[in-house]
Amino acid sequence: MTGKGFLAIDWGTTNRRVYHVLDDGRVVDRLDDAEGVAALSPEAYPAAIAALRARFGALPVLAAGMVGSTRGWREAPYVAAPAGLETIAAGLLAVGDGVAIVPGVCQADGDRPDVMRGEEVQLLGAVAAGLVPADAVLVQPGTHSKWVTMAGGRIAGWRTRMTGELFALLRDRSVLAEMMQGPVAPGPAFCEGVDRRGEDLTAALFEVRAGVLLGRRAAADGAAFASGLLIGAEIAAAGDAGAPVHLLSEGPLAALYTAAIVRLGGTAEHIDSHRAFVAGIHRLWELSR
Amino acid sequence: MTGKGFLAIDWGTTNRRVYHVLDDGRVVDRLDDAEGVAALSPEAYPAAIAALRARFGALPVLAAGMVGSTRGWREAPYVAAPAGLETIAAGLLAVGDGVAIVPGVCQADGDRPDVMRGEEVQLLGAVAAGLVPADAVLVQPGTHSKWVTMAGGRIAGWRTRMTGELFALLRDRSVLAEMMQGPVAPGPAFCEGVDRRGEDLTAALFEVRAGVLLGRRAAADGAAFASGLLIGAEIAAAGDAGAPVHLLSEGPLAALYTAAIVRLGGTAEHIDSHRAFVAGIHRLWELSR
Repeated sequence: MTGKGFLAIDWGTTNRRVYHVLDDGRVVDRLDDAEGVAALSPEAYPAAIAALRARFGALPVLAAGMVGSTRGWREAPYVAAPAGLETIAAGLLAVGDGVAIVPGVCQADGDRPDVMRGEEVQLLGAVAAGLVPADAVLVQPGTHSKWVTMAGGRIAGWRTRMTGELFALLRDRSVLAEMMQGPVAPGPAFCEGVDRRGEDLTAALFEVRAGVLLGRRAAADGAAFASGLLIGAEIAAAGDAGAPVHLLSEGPLAALYTAAIVRLGGTAEHIDSHRAFVAGIHRLWELSR
Repeated sequence: MTGKGFLAIDWGTTNRRVYHVLDDGRVVDRLDDAEGVAALSPEAYPAAIAALRARFGALPVLAAGMVGSTRGWREAPYVAAPAGLETIAAGLLAVGDGVAIVPGVCQADGDRPDVMRGEEVQLLGAVAAGLVPADAVLVQPGTHSKWVTMAGGRIAGWRTRMTGELFALLRDRSVLAEMMQGPVAPGPAFCEGVDRRGEDLTAALFEVRAGVLLGRRAAADGAAFASGLLIGAEIAAAGDAGAPVHLLSEGPLAALYTAAIVRLGGTAEHIDSHRAFVAGIHRLWELSR
């Protein structure tokens, strides 16, 4: 396959996913590793690209995600929403030697500034691949959870919530840590948290500790309850319970969000985020040639 | 003074305040240091008491705060709210050698479990000293901020919000850290955060980052904006804007809470928390003899 197609890289803060994509969009090889942006200095990227080409072949490279941030290789300035794949393609940053970086998208107008970097490829790819309608609510749960409104196949607007990062900080670093070492699954403790819908979130979080100290909750249930509080607060704040939510997520997180969305009266559909990413970056590849 | 009065210790997680209080309630000597509970193993307390007696004299000791928690010297079981000074005095835990530990207070009934340990002495002391009315709203801002309803001079109920701990985690450990190294003062950025009143808190927090990346806010203002968001959310959730709020706090934190409370239509009165503590523990001393 050497020489055919291109290398698509989803280059995040802690992880990197590399796909060898043929010109027709098929993926013929893939690598997932921990060579994220946090592990690399700006000077290290040419060698990292050379190593990938030694493995996959001397292919052009299209890289999305935090690689284009001020913490990455080179800053690829944000393009403004509303943004479609054509908008993104027009903002590609060529860094030489057959490598281009995908720009992030910003919401700079209005009173709710927001940014994304990497998510835009998945979002627009999901529409391009026909996985979601051109007008839809898409959700990317995670460290910085994004609720996105797509309109006419373009990213119209979104809000980022720090759900996953707050959960990790509380579990690893806070006074709740000793009560948050149990499993997180969509069981009764999680649902109890969801039912709070985020009313008085920072008080409810302290109940993780008080409830255990007073024998009202098992310490093993603390993490699930806290997760339910945070995810429930996120869904309630998003206020899109009426429309079907298209979840770009896999595994345990998808199960938690689905349980919470359904519990709050909504419906959730699972979208294959890897397939969406490949569809999006393949279309960008076509547009950039 | 040796032999007269007692040693009152406000023994928290990270700090310790020791007062030599005479039988008539006057403070004649004081020590503030960093010998908090986190710095001591359970076995270390007898030596710590001996060191204090070597400095202050061979006095009885009354110790409040985290010293009575599972992380401290010996666990002094919580007494249940509603709790007055008599309730607390009846729950004193004698640990031998003329030392007693003040129990915390719990809110075990109803669906909002909560606990306090150390704050109860300040709260009840504020009433005992005539610093606040017997029916009042008292607030202890900080790591675990407490909004307390006093009724008939007793602790009737309260909620703990993790405002200060969340702020510290976000400033020191989160993706917002680089935008939160500036000063926190009750200026325009702080007030902008307060005005959000905590609507969609976790999304507004991410704006600390997005706003700076998009040039909408100076990085130097990020900490003040985030502080305003968290404190505004706390005050709005407390929902006591109508009643005068009695702040048991000094210094910068008192200024921030006062600015936020006034901005949201309330009134704040500053209460000397040290004086309140001494009044409370002196009354406990009298009740325990």
